[in-house]
Amino acid sequence: MTVTITGVDVHDVRFPTAAAGDGSDAINRGDYSATYVELRTDAPGGTFGAGFTFTNGRGNEITCAAVRALAHHVVGRTVEEIVAQPVAFWRSLTADVQLRWLGPEKGVIHMATGALVNAVWDLRAKLAEKPLWRLLAEMPSEELVRNIDFHHIIDALNPAEAAAILEKGQIGLSDRLAELERDGFPSYTTSVGWLGYPDDKVRALTREAYGQGWRAMKMKVGGPIEDDVRRARIIREEIGPDALLMMDANQVWDVDEAIENMSRLVEFDPYWIEEPTHADDVLGHARIAEAVTGLSGGRCRVATGEVAANRVIFKQLLQAEAIGVCQIDACRIGGVNEVLSVILMAAKFGVPICPHAGGVGLCEYVQHLAIFDYLRVGASLDGRMVEYVDHLHEHFVDPVRTRGGRYLLPDQPGYSSTMKRASIAEFSFPDGPVWA
Amino acid sequence: MTVTITGVDVHDVRFPTAAAGDGSDAINRGDYSATYVELRTDAPGGTFGAGFTFTNGRGNEITCAAVRALAHHVVGRTVEEIVAQPVAFWRSLTADVQLRWLGPEKGVIHMATGALVNAVWDLRAKLAEKPLWRLLAEMPSEELVRNIDFHHIIDALNPAEAAAILEKGQIGLSDRLAELERDGFPSYTTSVGWLGYPDDKVRALTREAYGQGWRAMKMKVGGPIEDDVRRARIIREEIGPDALLMMDANQVWDVDEAIENMSRLVEFDPYWIEEPTHADDVLGHARIAEAVTGLSGGRCRVATGEVAANRVIFKQLLQAEAIGVCQIDACRIGGVNEVLSVILMAAKFGVPICPHAGGVGLCEYVQHLAIFDYLRVGASLDGRMVEYVDHLHEHFVDPVRTRGGRYLLPDQPGYSSTMKRASIAEFSFPDGPVWA
Repeated sequence: MTVTITGVDVHDVRFPTAAAGDGSDAINRGDYSATYVELRTDAPGGTFGAGFTFTNGRGNEITCAAVRALAHHVVGRTVEEIVAQPVAFWRSLTADVQLRWLGPEKGVIHMATGALVNAVWDLRAKLAEKPLWRLLAEMPSEELVRNIDFHHIIDALNPAEAAAILEKGQIGLSDRLAELERDGFPSYTTSVGWLGYPDDKVRALTREAYGQGWRAMKMKVGGPIEDDVRRARIIREEIGPDALLMMDANQVWDVDEAIENMSRLVEFDPYWIEEPTHADDVLGHARIAEAVTGLSGGRCRVATGEVAANRVIFKQLLQAEAIGVCQIDACRIGGVNEVLSVILMAAKFGVPICPHAGGVGLCEYVQHLAIFDYLRVGASLDGRMVEYVDHLHEHFVDPVRTRGGRYLLPDQPGYSSTMKRASIAEFSFPDGPVWA
Repeated sequence: MTVTITGVDVHDVRFPTAAAGDGSDAINRGDYSATYVELRTDAPGGTFGAGFTFTNGRGNEITCAAVRALAHHVVGRTVEEIVAQPVAFWRSLTADVQLRWLGPEKGVIHMATGALVNAVWDLRAKLAEKPLWRLLAEMPSEELVRNIDFHHIIDALNPAEAAAILEKGQIGLSDRLAELERDGFPSYTTSVGWLGYPDDKVRALTREAYGQGWRAMKMKVGGPIEDDVRRARIIREEIGPDALLMMDANQVWDVDEAIENMSRLVEFDPYWIEEPTHADDVLGHARIAEAVTGLSGGRCRVATGEVAANRVIFKQLLQAEAIGVCQIDACRIGGVNEVLSVILMAAKFGVPICPHAGGVGLCEYVQHLAIFDYLRVGASLDGRMVEYVDHLHEHFVDPVRTRGGRYLLPDQPGYSSTMKRASIAEFSFPDGPVWA
């Protein structure tokens, strides 16, 4: 059966979250939004592919325009030809001789690529009648490798190395799968410590989360340092010495400022400092990592990735030993194909994957990636957990399910990326009832 | 007199250059385009500010959309408040709490910032009745420093260091100005060796350019290596051993591939290899720089910058000793303010500025930046030259003028960025007569 992609529908969907202070940090105050894409096909039963990229409100129309500019590379393709020549398909989006200038492979144009590529993977998984994590985990190593564009990263990871990692990941896979089916995948919560929340709300949310079973929590830092110290103390008091506390500065600090502020915050035993400085500053992250390792006696590491532009930035973060935690995002970079390359590079460099989530639908996406990583690449849960934010899941057809601070395995076919019709209609910008 | 910016007009202007093979290289084949912006004001006489960012054709509507998304930060401002608080104004564009997510400070959203910020500088220079280079060169050091956002680069350059460089640049300035008024500013031509041109056209164009007085020429490489070698030989034969030959790979090579190919091409004594690999790969450029220095006995250096996303990437290229030539672009990064920071960082690290030009109006822009750099920062012409491409100048009200391979000083007020009304009308996409 040949399935042809017959059209691309793009929806500008925005949720009015800014007013509530949800999602406020040192530099963002957003109306969580999605550039939501559906690929129509001629498959019997109307099977379609759903994908999106996450934005922060204003400007979602720009990523929508970018999806429209790229759509001609997708419409008219068959799923079979994409499966047969996945890198050729991927490069038709990332190396368009005119559109590449707008990136290259970064920002708006690359986020649009991510939305489209993920929609193709959702379609592939739906046609295979498997959740994406299972489609990937069961895929032969050579086929997974064939989905990766090694251009510009081959100095860090070559196809033979990638295949060897994936082959090794076959060992014990069924045991790991049984474990996940029984226990779920570990996660942490970021819902307790947004900068927009007052102290008493932080304390109450922390206590509530601890009571629900969470043993890893993340707070935002990057405000006045005395405020950060005070809020860190509140959270550490509530969770005790054993639970993990992560800190996230959302890039607001300069390099030396990050080192100075961490010399104050190590008192609260942070497990990681996330985005301590500008996302593009590989060398700066490397300096901070060295300093923080010293300040914390090796207990605190540097984490970043949610704003890392592409596989070339991740490559350098790993080469420079700038990160101890690799925070892949599902849709800032060019979708599943590029994420696979980052997961494999991280494995080669011995850095665990802890995906970025939150926003709109990012939890739905990244659970698949983390599960695949554990089953087939990383093969250990040590230091691995998925971010969890309790926002906006109700708008998805196959929302994440958690139990006691763990993600349960998704079992519906696809990438859990399909949004409910009613939500699309209600939150469409600017004409949906919420915005009109 | 207070001047208020009352509106922003955005034009999608595209020139059908792809069909002719002009501007074809290893990864681009473009219809040279501009997201062209005019800031309307209430100034007597209708003074307006003109700015643009350059794109490669398809997708120019996306940068236009990004300008519209940012325009509310500009409309209603007075020139006086921008001059008084330039970094606050700049950050209103680059650190918008919602739009920042689309970059940050890279790609489409940052190019749109560049168009708007440059339009403001054109307006400032027109109101001062000076060409931009003169406005900048005559500006007190503390005011120049006040226009720079040191956030995320202060580990490489602080305000005191910047002020000291600028103060030192006052010495001998009038002599350097007299020299430029007499001789013009050195340049090199890229019009001889596009990949789209056959060998005999390359030879003829090279011979013609040499006859016109050009003693520095750039060729595109990154095709099959035997083709690159053959074309390099043709050009070197035509220009003799003394003229400079630069090579530009437009990012097409992997890191090790770049080193291997340069081991073939050093035979033709390249003065620099430009964009040998992915624009984001700071560490890769550093490895290539070290190798090429060895291969050439120190005669060949690495150049990049036209696709460097922002000042943080430039900072790292300099910190890592990855470049020996700093190729600023006027409108990929956030306009004059950010370019100033790069020029000053390059000066601190002892790397000469050779601006990227070509495209639409880039020669018009960057001549001002190079002249300012020589007059006030670099203070030496050693290794300094501006790219020159003989395309599309006729569409500008104040086009570049050259004589014997040198740019003559622009003398009209502004940033030479105003496009002719008739050109805007004729080449507007999709409704102008050329496209309709």
